[in-house]
Amino acid sequence: MTELDLDDLAARVELPDAAARAAASERQGRLTKPAGALGRLEELSLWLCSVQGECPPRPLDRVRVVVFAGDHGVARTAATSAYPPEVTAQMVLNFLAGGAAVNVLARLNGATVRVVDMAVDVDYVDLGASVPDDVVRHKVRRGSGSIDREDALTREQAAQAFAAGMAIADEEIDSGADLLVPGDMGIGNTTPAAAIVGILDGGDASAVVGRGTGIDDDTWMRKAAAVRDAMRRGRPHKGDPIALLATVGGADIAAMSGFLLEAAVRRTPVLLDGVVSCAAALVAQRIAYRAPRWWLAGHLSTEPAAAQALERLDLIPVVDYGLRLGEGTGALVALPVLAAAGATLREMATFDEAGVSDRDA
Amino acid sequence: MTELDLDDLAARVELPDAAARAAASERQGRLTKPAGALGRLEELSLWLCSVQGECPPRPLDRVRVVVFAGDHGVARTAATSAYPPEVTAQMVLNFLAGGAAVNVLARLNGATVRVVDMAVDVDYVDLGASVPDDVVRHKVRRGSGSIDREDALTREQAAQAFAAGMAIADEEIDSGADLLVPGDMGIGNTTPAAAIVGILDGGDASAVVGRGTGIDDDTWMRKAAAVRDAMRRGRPHKGDPIALLATVGGADIAAMSGFLLEAAVRRTPVLLDGVVSCAAALVAQRIAYRAPRWWLAGHLSTEPAAAQALERLDLIPVVDYGLRLGEGTGALVALPVLAAAGATLREMATFDEAGVSDRDA
Repeated sequence: MTELDLDDLAARVELPDAAARAAASERQGRLTKPAGALGRLEELSLWLCSVQGECPPRPLDRVRVVVFAGDHGVARTAATSAYPPEVTAQMVLNFLAGGAAVNVLARLNGATVRVVDMAVDVDYVDLGASVPDDVVRHKVRRGSGSIDREDALTREQAAQAFAAGMAIADEEIDSGADLLVPGDMGIGNTTPAAAIVGILDGGDASAVVGRGTGIDDDTWMRKAAAVRDAMRRGRPHKGDPIALLATVGGADIAAMSGFLLEAAVRRTPVLLDGVVSCAAALVAQRIAYRAPRWWLAGHLSTEPAAAQALERLDLIPVVDYGLRLGEGTGALVALPVLAAAGATLREMATFDEAGVSDRDA
Repeated sequence: MTELDLDDLAARVELPDAAARAAASERQGRLTKPAGALGRLEELSLWLCSVQGECPPRPLDRVRVVVFAGDHGVARTAATSAYPPEVTAQMVLNFLAGGAAVNVLARLNGATVRVVDMAVDVDYVDLGASVPDDVVRHKVRRGSGSIDREDALTREQAAQAFAAGMAIADEEIDSGADLLVPGDMGIGNTTPAAAIVGILDGGDASAVVGRGTGIDDDTWMRKAAAVRDAMRRGRPHKGDPIALLATVGGADIAAMSGFLLEAAVRRTPVLLDGVVSCAAALVAQRIAYRAPRWWLAGHLSTEPAAAQALERLDLIPVVDYGLRLGEGTGALVALPVLAAAGATLREMATFDEAGVSDRDA
């Protein structure tokens, strides 16, 4: 498929706008405050200008969260989660009803939420529910394989999911999204995320496995064993991102990788969320090393693999509140900080405008 | 003055509502997310319920920033700042024109800003400007004394400023404010703040003196010497808060102390800002040890005295972005986190409502 010429994709990812960044830096120096007094907000404002390609930056009026939902066989076969797999589908309906944390935080921030079912192990009819076509249009299969013993997807399914993620990014950007947030929902999804980070960043399974939804010690040991097995299965495919996603990923994570990469191609900024989006970002970085320059790390998940992935992505999380919910929630908690960075650069008076004496006066 | 019977004031500060806090904790456990998955947001939501006295918490619709402006003689005589003292008055006009960082962040968050001139060394007529009566009604004097060599205020002026701060809190609470933010503006104001923290928390001047607006090494040494001298002058008054404020504070800081205390008396939550508000909070804590339970630390200023004061107040800052601007800006960057904490507790569906299986299901 031409959509998956990864070298071509990599070549299409440019760097953010250095001139806009320089203009932002210059403008920061003229605002009515001591130089540097807004700390990290100043750096964030420079990034925002660079990805928007202009200074002062535009308000983020069309923030779109896309929650990639999928089930993972490993949650059932190796029982790596504290929650039953049925919860994934139930939560999809909760998202559609507006009752989940991501819905609340999106409303609070003027953002909107779309959920895409990439591989939830459900036929909604069986739940007596109907969902919009928008949700299931890109669905690849019901549940991904149990990665400790079998491939998550066929290579064709992985490519299909990856391309679907790209298409979803295009749909959202064409609809006017000015910032994208990749959310995740899937009981068991921190297991493939840990395996991917472990393979791409190196290290032992025990170093990347976390408590997920809040598992006990026995479950943690089962999860670590599953991640160890998955890492053994996936390691030979380290240099082939699509094969890696097929072997130890899942349709949701594959789609997220394509989504993140296409956002970079389309010069659209992304606010990353937790460990699942960090794992997808790590895969996308392997394809296009410039891509992370278009992404900002929203928060530091408590999952150890998240910190490891962010380190390798060279991204510093905006907030660190011990969040471990996914869905895009960490990114949405960070969003107001980025908005504050943009607003101060855009709206503050300069020394000249306000008739305030600068230190050199 | 009966307004300044400090023992009576202390007795009037109650603890936040434990029952509302318990109800919040119980409700957190029923929301559609793994227990604890919202990390610090959950703890913040409990605090919010406790200070509002109800669960779920109300939205924070009437957040009011009060910027306490004042000049400090030490900035002129000991040249402890990177900016000329004239900037204080110029910034008051910038606040009134809506061009300062605090104005931008307040607009972004639906909050409003009031500036009160407690001791700015200006007659606005001389600047060809007129300011609302609201701004100057509580003014105590033009500039506070140079605390390295003379008292900042007379005892009467300190009591007057303290009572004015209480009156300002009453005015704002009576007007419907549901959260108060103490902002500061005053060239040189981190010098008395450092002296107060050094005296009340102990330790050497060099440990509490920071870079303020961004001073160089020579200025830092002058500032440290001024703080050392001020601490020597103020230490005998450690046990007498009003005398301490008169000796090494200033009318702006004295007013802020009264403001913070009256907010606690009136059961109104406060989001603290930088080092100046932390110093005022430390004085208020000496008067009423329960008062800090009504306050949340917005951010960690880069001023070393801020961290020291927050430690003693037993408050953990919400954000840490290397901000050092004051005005209330750090608190306003933190405000959306508190809003997110409240909104999730208020609006998320419970497991029962959403038909989602809990882990015990």
